Amino acid sequence: MIVVMKMKASQKNIDAVIHRVESAGCQVHPIVGVDRTVIGVIGDGRVVDRRQIGRMKGVENVMPITKPYKAASREFKPEDTVFSVGGVIIGGKDLVIMAGPCAVEGRTELLEIAHACKEGGAHILRGGAYKPRTSPYSFQGLAEEGLRYLAEAREETGMPIITEVMDPALVPLVCEYVDILQVGARNMQNYTLLNAIGRSQHPVMLKRSMIGTTLEWLMCAEYILSHGNNRVMLCERGIRANETETRNTFDVNAIPVTKQLSHLPIIADPSHATGRWEYVGATAKAAVAAGADGLMIEVHQQPDQAWSDGRQSLKPERFKRLVGELRLIAQAVGRDIPVDSLEVNQNGRTGIATPIEVVTKR
Amino acid sequence: MIVVMKMKASQKNIDAVIHRVESAGCQVHPIVGVDRTVIGVIGDGRVVDRRQIGRMKGVENVMPITKPYKAASREFKPEDTVFSVGGVIIGGKDLVIMAGPCAVEGRTELLEIAHACKEGGAHILRGGAYKPRTSPYSFQGLAEEGLRYLAEAREETGMPIITEVMDPALVPLVCEYVDILQVGARNMQNYTLLNAIGRSQHPVMLKRSMIGTTLEWLMCAEYILSHGNNRVMLCERGIRANETETRNTFDVNAIPVTKQLSHLPIIADPSHATGRWEYVGATAKAAVAAGADGLMIEVHQQPDQAWSDGRQSLKPERFKRLVGELRLIAQAVGRDIPVDSLEVNQNGRTGIATPIEVVTKR
Amino acid sequence: MIVVMKMKASQKNIDAVIHRVESAGCQVHPIVGVDRTVIGVIGDGRVVDRRQIGRMKGVENVMPITKPYKAASREFKPEDTVFSVGGVIIGGKDLVIMAGPCAVEGRTELLEIAHACKEGGAHILRGGAYKPRTSPYSFQGLAEEGLRYLAEAREETGMPIITEVMDPALVPLVCEYVDILQVGARNMQNYTLLNAIGRSQHPVMLKRSMIGTTLEWLMCAEYILSHGNNRVMLCERGIRANETETRNTFDVNAIPVTKQLSHLPIIADPSHATGRWEYVGATAKAAVAAGADGLMIEVHQQPDQAWSDGRQSLKPERFKRLVGELRLIAQAVGRDIPVDSLEVNQNGRTGIATPIEVVTKR
Amino acid sequence: MIVVMKMKASQKNIDAVIHRVESAGCQVHPIVGVDRTVIGVIGDGRVVDRRQIGRMKGVENVMPITKPYKAASREFKPEDTVFSVGGVIIGGKDLVIMAGPCAVEGRTELLEIAHACKEGGAHILRGGAYKPRTSPYSFQGLAEEGLRYLAEAREETGMPIITEVMDPALVPLVCEYVDILQVGARNMQNYTLLNAIGRSQHPVMLKRSMIGTTLEWLMCAEYILSHGNNRVMLCERGIRANETETRNTFDVNAIPVTKQLSHLPIIADPSHATGRWEYVGATAKAAVAAGADGLMIEVHQQPDQAWSDGRQSLKPERFKRLVGELRLIAQAVGRDIPVDSLEVNQNGRTGIATPIEVVTKR
Repeated sequence: MIVVMKMKASQKNIDAVIHRVESAGCQVHPIVGVDRTVIGVIGDGRVVDRRQIGRMKGVENVMPITKPYKAASREFKPEDTVFSVGGVIIGGKDLVIMAGPCAVEGRTELLEIAHACKEGGAHILRGGAYKPRTSPYSFQGLAEEGLRYLAEAREETGMPIITEVMDPALVPLVCEYVDILQVGARNMQNYTLLNAIGRSQHPVMLKRSMIGTTLEWLMCAEYILSHGNNRVMLCERGIRANETETRNTFDVNAIPVTKQLSHLPIIADPSHATGRWEYVGATAKAAVAAGADGLMIEVHQQPDQAWSDGRQSLKPERFKRLVGELRLIAQAVGRDIPVDSLEVNQNGRTGIATPIEVVTKR
Repeated sequence: MIVVMKMKASQKNIDAVIHRVESAGCQVHPIVGVDRTVIGVIGDGRVVDRRQIGRMKGVENVMPITKPYKAASREFKPEDTVFSVGGVIIGGKDLVIMAGPCAVEGRTELLEIAHACKEGGAHILRGGAYKPRTSPYSFQGLAEEGLRYLAEAREETGMPIITEVMDPALVPLVCEYVDILQVGARNMQNYTLLNAIGRSQHPVMLKRSMIGTTLEWLMCAEYILSHGNNRVMLCERGIRANETETRNTFDVNAIPVTKQLSHLPIIADPSHATGRWEYVGATAKAAVAAGADGLMIEVHQQPDQAWSDGRQSLKPERFKRLVGELRLIAQAVGRDIPVDSLEVNQNGRTGIATPIEVVTKR
Repeated sequence: MIVVMKMKASQKNIDAVIHRVESAGCQVHPIVGVDRTVIGVIGDGRVVDRRQIGRMKGVENVMPITKPYKAASREFKPEDTVFSVGGVIIGGKDLVIMAGPCAVEGRTELLEIAHACKEGGAHILRGGAYKPRTSPYSFQGLAEEGLRYLAEAREETGMPIITEVMDPALVPLVCEYVDILQVGARNMQNYTLLNAIGRSQHPVMLKRSMIGTTLEWLMCAEYILSHGNNRVMLCERGIRANETETRNTFDVNAIPVTKQLSHLPIIADPSHATGRWEYVGATAKAAVAAGADGLMIEVHQQPDQAWSDGRQSLKPERFKRLVGELRLIAQAVGRDIPVDSLEVNQNGRTGIATPIEVVTKR
Repeated sequence: MIVVMKMKASQKNIDAVIHRVESAGCQVHPIVGVDRTVIGVIGDGRVVDRRQIGRMKGVENVMPITKPYKAASREFKPEDTVFSVGGVIIGGKDLVIMAGPCAVEGRTELLEIAHACKEGGAHILRGGAYKPRTSPYSFQGLAEEGLRYLAEAREETGMPIITEVMDPALVPLVCEYVDILQVGARNMQNYTLLNAIGRSQHPVMLKRSMIGTTLEWLMCAEYILSHGNNRVMLCERGIRANETETRNTFDVNAIPVTKQLSHLPIIADPSHATGRWEYVGATAKAAVAAGADGLMIEVHQQPDQAWSDGRQSLKPERFKRLVGELRLIAQAVGRDIPVDSLEVNQNGRTGIATPIEVVTKR
């Protein structure tokens, strides 16, 4: 931590800061410059509250040096996090394709899409049973009924399933049904939910909020990791910017950035990141080229009949074609998208994810 | 709702949209222009899913006409919402001052600040018992112990109390202790929490998220109102913009905008909106001049010892001086900040807010 | 300047940075921490290129300590800048009201509005002769013809005039006609233009861009000041944020922030900052309460006939009423809006601004 | 154009709008809904000023239907724009690589980098002679001396050259030296400059501003195109968002979006879009996968000695390796990056770009 004193700070102000820092058990290292004094703090700066120091007389600014996350940091864990969910390896050399409808709309519809997704190259099935909707009057999801249909689709197709959970009280119930929990963008900083998920020890995909910096995002991952739940993957789904032609703005930089700062796998969601099916393909390709470990893509048989987000959903045939195109790009960057992984998975899977040792990829 | 067709849309595409809209029970009104056709939808456009139509062949864009909120809208309820909490009128001609520490740090400290706030002109006491912190390793609040201290401070000072609740499961517990629930910016779109608060029928202050538009904000109010809980006030606490000199950017426009679009009272939080005590006064004055119905201001005896957000806290003497300055501005815009309201309130109050009839202010 | 080394930086990396800094004539002050080394740079950090150092091996980050502006900084010039333009004092205890149409539309129309503005309480007349328009097919302004009408309006009313200039080559011509040049938001970082205006030694109002930080804004003021042109005022006209109900988001925090960081007068433009006449009053009041030194307000006799920006223009009678309301707020914060200043000014003015000594206000 | 009337609008208000629209030569088509009336405007809505109508009594909102750009629009010109500059085809099946230093620092240095870039696979040489710098005290470029060195580098390597121009008065001079003009992000809406470039009939690359929407960007292209200068390419160089780990946020969605809305070629600048060399590769790959027609990449022999932007510059050997990797991705999306194009080009080139017929690619 670096404490920058004001130009007109008195020696008494400077001494007070030094005393405060030393009382917290840290060493100080004052640098007397031409215009002002700067105080370096040696030791774990996290024990000294940055905002407290910032309020002391004569202090202009306090700048942190050490990143505030630890378990999520590549500095502290250099090797990639790789884990298996229902036989599907996440974070390894091969990319993972998650696909399915925005919302689970009914048993028949879901089973049909699930088969189409598997046929199109998906490894994991997505589907919303609890939907965060802007309006209280909109369809809010089938709830537990939706979870049952998802579990049935897993039985039929062999694909592990992922679904969003919004209510901390429902985490245990949702864990009974699905393989991977999803934290939506609106709940990235819902710490009650993050703690409940951390305690569940269940695999989780943490979406970035529409406004979050990577630092804030990794701090949210840290909430989950701090409970010893290491099966965490990140998901970039677009931020809010000025553009009106797309629903969100896909921050492709976030892929190399999180890869450098963290060891966690990173998934891209081009459906939400664009909001329009016409742009999903181009953005999905960009994500693969930039190094994403997987994609989450919305697929619907009849997007113009979808109960939510139809505008950004691909039809099954287009999805299948896209996976083929993505595979070529994955191979161009030294990776692959396995198309027969599901057969492989069908035997070993247990319905619910089993912990595996974290292995080093690179 | 207006459906804009593409320039190259076929008659078949147009007919399909018309058929869809009519099937939903709405009338259509096509306008054949020079370059393209535009289809006006008459009836409650909310029954037709905008995103579904947007996905139909030949459709370029779908523009809503009717605002999606109803209970929160001034179009449907022209008179201001005014209600009383523990004898303090919110949303009336007089402004309401809420003050107190960011976090409840201990019994003695809280009682001391509470008296200082009352002495300085506050009508309602704030204090966090559950703190949303960026880091899982930071102080997370005293929890129920903090609620007990708040209740004790209310007994001693006669001021109603407000505190943030983050966990839907804790809403009933928090309601037992405090007069007003607060929804923090990070939880604005935590629909599980909003529903729990709606069901509680407890007064609530809904902060705007760092990124939310007023439309999204009012939709979140609609979630609470849809449960018949009408004692809702809004709070503008600053949005995230590019500026680095302040913690957030206070959107003062939001005050006249919400006043025009909605009947709900609007409170300003200049402490979070600036993040630095030096700027709190100027921004508080701006809020009063722009028409805010009240202010929430962080006060701490020793800001440089505060467990959180010390940098934006005022010392009691500065707070008192500021309330005096704010009163002059309130009077300049035809309102007032009563300084003896608390004596008036002390008799009639019941500890927990009692519903009153909504009265018309203007 | 503080250079933060990576955790894995070698001693060789550290030595290279030290050598580089010392070669530039600065002293270094390394702090060896638990995890990493941090190097403090003593001396004028501006002679060392921050981006160069940031590219050296083993360097994680480089953080500037000294603000990069000097002539614009209150640290170097503590007293407020106050100057007179055509007899109107800018930056003093009294606030300045600039008013007029968005664009000069014709001789008769301008003279009529000019008189109405003066009658309503304006001290300076605004009007666009060169209009930055989003579309090349929109009305681009009357150019020199517009300047002539402005000069005529000055003769008739005695009010100094301000107009936007966009083309560096036209600066000399515009200086011949008007008292104050205006740099629009889109041209804040048009350095060619800033240099031309700096050289002109003409009074100037520098609008903040829709995205600029106060630091960038002050650096643009520094461009003008670096030519010895000290008659510079800032103008906050709203930033671009997510809100769609208003055209821009007025950053009221910018008023106390620029007052703290700089000695330059700050004007608010509530017309552009809201984009809708219904909100202009509330935002104008907020600006005065927050400490603005003046306002620029668009006025038009028939806003629904205006050639540009009619939606945000006030009618003369509403403008006059607003100035009365603003005066009450100015007085509530210990300042004033003189209504008879123009008579005072009429004798002394010369048509073109004359330099006066900068005087200390506080 | 659609005019939405307020719920409480009177018939008189509605009639006034209808009259106004009809007076401008357009037809109206009112739709009387349950709550309010909506008025469809048929004809070229551009002749009716949207902001004027928005200011009329009883009008709530005015929504444009027709995009305001025409020459830049794919609706009006469906086939891709393809043109040749010095023998290099831009906008065709093959991608174009532009590379070189941020600033021209000297004759020897430039020639050395130019050869290294060509050797690494570049087709066009970039280099700044006029540099937009945040600080007036920073190096501002070598000006005409820099242009001479660029021209010499072209002679030696055969690569056409591109450089930024900021001053409208210098456009003719810069055109004498270079093949392609560049409009920087800060000048995207510098209409004086855009008009000067439009008149020059010189090829130009128009960078998107840090905040511009694609609509605003295309309107700026429209300024140039409106002069009959059709050799325009767009360049996405990153927008400003909340992220602090990167200098800007690369909006990869902009590639498919501009491809859909416009026929102009789109180039990506991963150097500015990330601001850190470590991330340039991943983002460059993303751009190619998403369909960019070319890349502009900063290359410097000794980035830690660069006079500007060293942190985002690649060393020649890394650049060469990256071009090889990009080629694989280009091929995976059905395109290519020719490595021997320069030999092909060397004969035909004339030093200054020659107009060619626009050909259809797809």
